[in-house]
Amino acid sequence: MSTVKDFTLSCPLPITDYPTVTLAHGGGGKLMHQLIEKMILPAFNSPLLEARHDGAVFELGGARLAFTTDSYVVRPLFFPGGDIGSLAINGTVNDLSMCGARPVYLSCGLILEEGLPMETLWAVVQSLKQAAEVAGVQLVTGDTKVVDKGKGDGVFINTAGVGLIEHGLTIAPSAVRAGDVVLLSGDVGRHGIAIMALREGLEFESAIESDCAPLNAAVQTLIGGNVGVHCLRDLTRGGLGTTLIEIAEATGLQITIDEMKIPVRDDVAGACEVLGFDPLYLANEGRMIVFVPENEAARALELLRGSQHTAGAVEIGRVTGERGGLVKMKSRIGTTRIIDMLSGEQLPRIC
Amino acid sequence: MSTVKDFTLSCPLPITDYPTVTLAHGGGGKLMHQLIEKMILPAFNSPLLEARHDGAVFELGGARLAFTTDSYVVRPLFFPGGDIGSLAINGTVNDLSMCGARPVYLSCGLILEEGLPMETLWAVVQSLKQAAEVAGVQLVTGDTKVVDKGKGDGVFINTAGVGLIEHGLTIAPSAVRAGDVVLLSGDVGRHGIAIMALREGLEFESAIESDCAPLNAAVQTLIGGNVGVHCLRDLTRGGLGTTLIEIAEATGLQITIDEMKIPVRDDVAGACEVLGFDPLYLANEGRMIVFVPENEAARALELLRGSQHTAGAVEIGRVTGERGGLVKMKSRIGTTRIIDMLSGEQLPRIC
Repeated sequence: MSTVKDFTLSCPLPITDYPTVTLAHGGGGKLMHQLIEKMILPAFNSPLLEARHDGAVFELGGARLAFTTDSYVVRPLFFPGGDIGSLAINGTVNDLSMCGARPVYLSCGLILEEGLPMETLWAVVQSLKQAAEVAGVQLVTGDTKVVDKGKGDGVFINTAGVGLIEHGLTIAPSAVRAGDVVLLSGDVGRHGIAIMALREGLEFESAIESDCAPLNAAVQTLIGGNVGVHCLRDLTRGGLGTTLIEIAEATGLQITIDEMKIPVRDDVAGACEVLGFDPLYLANEGRMIVFVPENEAARALELLRGSQHTAGAVEIGRVTGERGGLVKMKSRIGTTRIIDMLSGEQLPRIC
Repeated sequence: MSTVKDFTLSCPLPITDYPTVTLAHGGGGKLMHQLIEKMILPAFNSPLLEARHDGAVFELGGARLAFTTDSYVVRPLFFPGGDIGSLAINGTVNDLSMCGARPVYLSCGLILEEGLPMETLWAVVQSLKQAAEVAGVQLVTGDTKVVDKGKGDGVFINTAGVGLIEHGLTIAPSAVRAGDVVLLSGDVGRHGIAIMALREGLEFESAIESDCAPLNAAVQTLIGGNVGVHCLRDLTRGGLGTTLIEIAEATGLQITIDEMKIPVRDDVAGACEVLGFDPLYLANEGRMIVFVPENEAARALELLRGSQHTAGAVEIGRVTGERGGLVKMKSRIGTTRIIDMLSGEQLPRIC
């Protein structure tokens, strides 16, 4: 029998600082990274998990596969531009895509709270179905659990996914090289603001819709176009800033970006001012960054711009040869600063 | 934007009877089956999901694979013989095994409640690690979310798994034939009673431990021993009774079992009398039934008895040629009755 007591002595986090889990431990910032790096990764037993990737990549039975999972706890369940169902499909489709895989099969685990209106469940299930069809993936296995009223929050969804890697590229932080160009697939911050505006009851001239979208077609366009992609990463919790830092840290190289080149819609920028958010750290659910060799950047950009969900792609910066694992940003006023991971939570339960 | 309203008209469940989700919808009985069959399966878009299997079986990149998922919401988190961590590993290992696959890679999605003691999380993570090592699988990808206090219940875990099928057998309800012998891998009801005794504060001379265990080694022993296995199914929510009914319904054949041959430990039988439960419907987390051709039954039984977690295997009945999708049980007093699926919940949040 396992008991709590057996394990406390060896707990690697300073539990005097954080004796309990806080919302910030799920917020995508420093505390979440500390929790995962110190508590969870060391306890797991796979070299594949060490890759700090959006998913695991391995060979099995002669096939080169990617495998990933995400749970979705967003609230509210429905928001402009999406809902927990479309989020759960697109999030996992995108994680597989970021591994360079073609997403094929998804699983779906539902945790329902007692008292959930049956029609809400029906709406969520229909959205799962629709989003899977749009993304061209099949939901092939599932599970349903019910928890007591007050022990859940309507619906939580877990999707895991299996994708097929049909090329010889290594698409991972380890493939990033000095000189690589950093492309961003579109404007940032809409998912975060769409959720937050709803929670805060903010009204805009027209609703800001989440960017929630599947990125598999855009990735297949790059790979099918023989672009020698070095790394792909979608911008979810923690936003563009955190994602860039993760890759800089994983590679040990520096990334320099230009704030002026990061597309932020006027309404999103306005909402950020009202709410006190930095678009650099806002969550996105249909945006990615792409690292490509300099001489392929123009072609990659053209391919991205021709694909539905990445039509707003732009070049935002470079990987430089300096060591240090830092991200530097040239600001709108011309200064350069080192950008840092958020230390607390920005937006809890954003995905 | 998806809205609840868009979908209500087409909701296929009689929502006047059940306007909201109840605990019984997750209890493994009739209501859960109705929910899954009428609401969830029709909305998904895969022929693979129709197989009513413990997981999906498909070919991808030339490899024959199984893929499955389960969420775990058991309470309490720690119980005699296991905890939510070992349950989450063994449950998914067993679902892959029931597809005839060798479980290889698992994912792990954690949904943590704000305020969860860090040492409880550590204990759960250590248990995940230990159970994965014992079962010989690798945790290769994961995700951590945090929900507000009062919107979760400590820890929920989702594990999904990918397994490799290394033989040419079809192991599924569709392969079951009249004349097949039904083997049961050991005594039933311990997981259900272990959890219930803890919740009710019942004390026994010695604690009844859950049967929670990985069944992959036993399944590999059968397959490696060239037993022509027709179907495998682990007995989880709903217990032996529900599982037999599911297979009878899927095949359209009848299954006849002998109550006298079903091993139930004396302490479990005693607890069932006190608590008013029928061991036939109690949850198990390390038990399975095996359908084999009559002429291979003796050898299969011998192989199972030689494997650690199936040492108590017995023959409990036969598949008969009659149509009807029913399960008949010869009772201890010699009468024969048709056994039915539970209509409500037996034990909520048992896994």
